Amino acid sequence: MSQNEAKRLAAEKAIEYVEDGMIVGVGTGSTVAFFIDALGRIRHRIAGAVSSSEQSTERLRAHGIEVMELNNTGELALYVDGADECDPHKRLIKGGGAALTREKIIAEASRQFICLIDPSKQVPVLGRFPLPVEVIPMARSLAARRILALTGGQPVWRDGVVTDNGNVILDVHGLSITDPVTLENELNQIPGVVSVGLFARRPADVVIVGGEPPRVL
Amino acid sequence: MSQNEAKRLAAEKAIEYVEDGMIVGVGTGSTVAFFIDALGRIRHRIAGAVSSSEQSTERLRAHGIEVMELNNTGELALYVDGADECDPHKRLIKGGGAALTREKIIAEASRQFICLIDPSKQVPVLGRFPLPVEVIPMARSLAARRILALTGGQPVWRDGVVTDNGNVILDVHGLSITDPVTLENELNQIPGVVSVGLFARRPADVVIVGGEPPRVL
Repeated sequence: MSQNEAKRLAAEKAIEYVEDGMIVGVGTGSTVAFFIDALGRIRHRIAGAVSSSEQSTERLRAHGIEVMELNNTGELALYVDGADECDPHKRLIKGGGAALTREKIIAEASRQFICLIDPSKQVPVLGRFPLPVEVIPMARSLAARRILALTGGQPVWRDGVVTDNGNVILDVHGLSITDPVTLENELNQIPGVVSVGLFARRPADVVIVGGEPPRVL
Repeated sequence: MSQNEAKRLAAEKAIEYVEDGMIVGVGTGSTVAFFIDALGRIRHRIAGAVSSSEQSTERLRAHGIEVMELNNTGELALYVDGADECDPHKRLIKGGGAALTREKIIAEASRQFICLIDPSKQVPVLGRFPLPVEVIPMARSLAARRILALTGGQPVWRDGVVTDNGNVILDVHGLSITDPVTLENELNQIPGVVSVGLFARRPADVVIVGGEPPRVL
């Protein structure tokens, strides 16, 4: 089975969690694109969506789904998103697409977070995928020095990338993240760090691994 | 003595800490404006300045002081800034002028942080001054709910204010901050919070209280 077909099957499975009248939180990325397409087919059953990126907003609107502001919706029942890595405790690395901050905000605002992955994203320990950290531009060098001292990992500036919030991304290479909750806590303390692509304090609630049939963890 | 005269005397005292060839970190506000004016008189002795706001950058340039990028300077020897409140352990509330994130970044990057206050800013316990928290705009309501749940304080949106980083400010009223380090740690974990106007993990090293003569704490 192709990776794309695995992603599509995971996305179709996630539709089972969407209940009538819901406002659905929607992440960003290639797997989520399949979910948005599936959501388009049941658009008359949902109240609308909250989007984590301009890219997803466009695709939602193309399907005739109303995109709402999180400041107006209150807590959401459901958030569906992909991940770059997923460990056995459903803790994630996200941010390869640079939308980590908005994704983290929507995940925090949602009662249930469903993460869609293909089998290649499952790892025993997070860190083979470089950990994205969103940083205020003037703190780029300072944050890189502090991240190096704290983690021993190598921060690499994702040159040319500006986030939806006007910030820069440092990708931290060479980590083996055995205690992701503590690492997330500590990185969040560095002045100039806006958010960390570790979803460990608030992991996924359900992980759907694409395949025939999809596996629900 | 007027409050302005107290501020000016504190700023003059701070000049004694400036050594030849230094790149000086410069904060924001009415007390710092006196410091910049004093710095202008010894501008030929310093290498330049790193500024925490457009307002201070303009004033520095008007005095012929070169303003440098923190990403190019490395760690600074000295940072001079004011505060909205200061407790006996030199822990501060800052951010009344909405420049808290850049101020926090420069304070972190500096080996010595000198805080200039007039006597009215000294408090036994921080919190009478509303605590500013800088927040990504889409997380405004979510962060307000989480801050209320965490602290019991009342977050008030500083309507109409957009920070230099394009974000909004919540001012948290009604706090009595007996453990500022823990509160700073916890607020930093809320998704969407960019920075917290508590300077407790990295307090001031020296506090100069304006007066005749100024008192150095």
